[in-house]
Amino acid sequence: MVYRYSESPLICPEDIRPFDDRFEVIGVFNPGVTECEGKILLLMRVAVRPKQREGYLSVPVLHDGKIEIMTLDKADYDCSDSRFAVAQDGSRLLTSMSYFVVALSEDGITFRVDSERCILPSEDLEAYGIEDPRITYLDGQYYITYSAVSEYGICAALKRTRDFKMYERMGVILHPDNKDVAIFPEKIGGKYYMLHRPSTSEFGKPEIWIAESDNLTQWGNHRHVAGVRSQSWDGVRIGSSGVPIRVPEGWLVVYHGADADDTYCLGAFLLDAEEPWRVIGRTDEPIMRPELPCEREGFFSNVVFACGGIVAGDTLRIYYGATDKFICGGEVKIKDIMEVMKR
Amino acid sequence: MVYRYSESPLICPEDIRPFDDRFEVIGVFNPGVTECEGKILLLMRVAVRPKQREGYLSVPVLHDGKIEIMTLDKADYDCSDSRFAVAQDGSRLLTSMSYFVVALSEDGITFRVDSERCILPSEDLEAYGIEDPRITYLDGQYYITYSAVSEYGICAALKRTRDFKMYERMGVILHPDNKDVAIFPEKIGGKYYMLHRPSTSEFGKPEIWIAESDNLTQWGNHRHVAGVRSQSWDGVRIGSSGVPIRVPEGWLVVYHGADADDTYCLGAFLLDAEEPWRVIGRTDEPIMRPELPCEREGFFSNVVFACGGIVAGDTLRIYYGATDKFICGGEVKIKDIMEVMKR
Repeated sequence: MVYRYSESPLICPEDIRPFDDRFEVIGVFNPGVTECEGKILLLMRVAVRPKQREGYLSVPVLHDGKIEIMTLDKADYDCSDSRFAVAQDGSRLLTSMSYFVVALSEDGITFRVDSERCILPSEDLEAYGIEDPRITYLDGQYYITYSAVSEYGICAALKRTRDFKMYERMGVILHPDNKDVAIFPEKIGGKYYMLHRPSTSEFGKPEIWIAESDNLTQWGNHRHVAGVRSQSWDGVRIGSSGVPIRVPEGWLVVYHGADADDTYCLGAFLLDAEEPWRVIGRTDEPIMRPELPCEREGFFSNVVFACGGIVAGDTLRIYYGATDKFICGGEVKIKDIMEVMKR
Repeated sequence: MVYRYSESPLICPEDIRPFDDRFEVIGVFNPGVTECEGKILLLMRVAVRPKQREGYLSVPVLHDGKIEIMTLDKADYDCSDSRFAVAQDGSRLLTSMSYFVVALSEDGITFRVDSERCILPSEDLEAYGIEDPRITYLDGQYYITYSAVSEYGICAALKRTRDFKMYERMGVILHPDNKDVAIFPEKIGGKYYMLHRPSTSEFGKPEIWIAESDNLTQWGNHRHVAGVRSQSWDGVRIGSSGVPIRVPEGWLVVYHGADADDTYCLGAFLLDAEEPWRVIGRTDEPIMRPELPCEREGFFSNVVFACGGIVAGDTLRIYYGATDKFICGGEVKIKDIMEVMKR
């Protein structure tokens, strides 16, 4: 249903210059998407790892607000999952670290990466990196929600900016573990709303919740919105894949779902316009599955994962991460999604 | 260090009449504590389970806001952990359900249980019960934080009351999983604060965090406050065991800690008066360990677990749950805690 731009992948790791030459870029993916100064702006998640030396394992660490390299004896760690170095006591270090870089486009196909224009992790709760930004334009400013990852867990944090040059820190808005936070682009009934995804739970599953706020920094009245569907493509975990889009029928939410094989697809649901905690429609099947070679093989196989899109008339342009390595693009008619939405 | 009242346990399961005769009371424990109408008031967690029939397993379920009994074939479930009935697909039902009952005392030793004066679970996010209330008297009302447990996870919820007869619902204030929420009894620097304990995390541990609010229902600026201490009595999980107490040196927090054997003890730490996210002292050793027979053997062995206390002059009176079955009481001089606090 989603038409892929034939130029995909649009942005590859080799298009990014790392913030420090001792690192190499291993992935550029899961961008926040908005329009800024008449252009399409991507705030891209860039994953870097230290260049490695034979026999050693070098991992990134945040020290006094700066990203440093820690070199370990490779024999002391289990590296069978390439994302982690696991010590004998079970404690884990991440082998890579993510930060954000801006890219701009006039045509939506060709992007100019501005490797200098970046947001680096800078505080204790970001010590393992910052991930998966989502951007909401609201009241004249851009609000960026993202995952702040550290030994203390995965929190949801918020920054705002007018220009993607200067950023104002607005703190950690949700305690660990939480991911996939997307703020609605307007108040509803006098309140701000956001979708979020508590990630770990003794009884619960990684599913989509909603919270409300008067001021965007403090959130309450958490309610469960949408669940996984056992045995389905979205049977194990789901999360919002971008900012809800106001359509005549309500709020259209593109979401990602993963199954037991960790294949990530995109689907959509529809929330009531006035009571956005009520799901009034949902697609049975994905609107997008991993199909292109770059969506099937990369850093983490069989993943299409979006953090945002742009509405242009009757069309939704989606810029999405493929296999945690590339950024691809495509577009879909909103009415085509609405037609397969089961009410 | 804590002097136990010789009358302990002060309240036992047989002192409670269940809200419905088809149930039996299996535990009364972990009470919220406050003063009301010149008396000491306990808001007690009461755990009930359906009376059982041979060969069947009856479990409590919430249906249309009412507690009903579901009867299952015992052969289909694994009941080796008495708290759960585990189906073959791994899904779990709780064998008991908790709600809250008021007890009042004039002398702090003899309590009159008012089994009719109770709070029952009533909504979807409370379908497995409500647990471990903590009470903060603030701005002329009593604020009750508690765990709301359901298939969606363990949330922190808030109610307020003037009289422990009529309650105002203030919603779920923290998404799953979170427990051990305690609101500070006054504003600090113009903001409300609460301690909380995210319970599950991919990287983090069950440790104590703080959040701030302008209105008590919406919370933000989450920060990590105090961690576990590996190999120690508080090496696996910790949580606030009551409302912070203003002392000349700062905020005194009694907390519970568990080790790898699931032995629960009480300790204390001290927070800065003006910056309550900063720990400025902590006891090395517990101020209380399970010692009495009723603290060692009951429903869950070797547990002392408090949700609150009463300050009377230079003394802290603690009413605490023992082995998830009884309520006991004791008292300690605040200066005795402060003397063993490592600064």
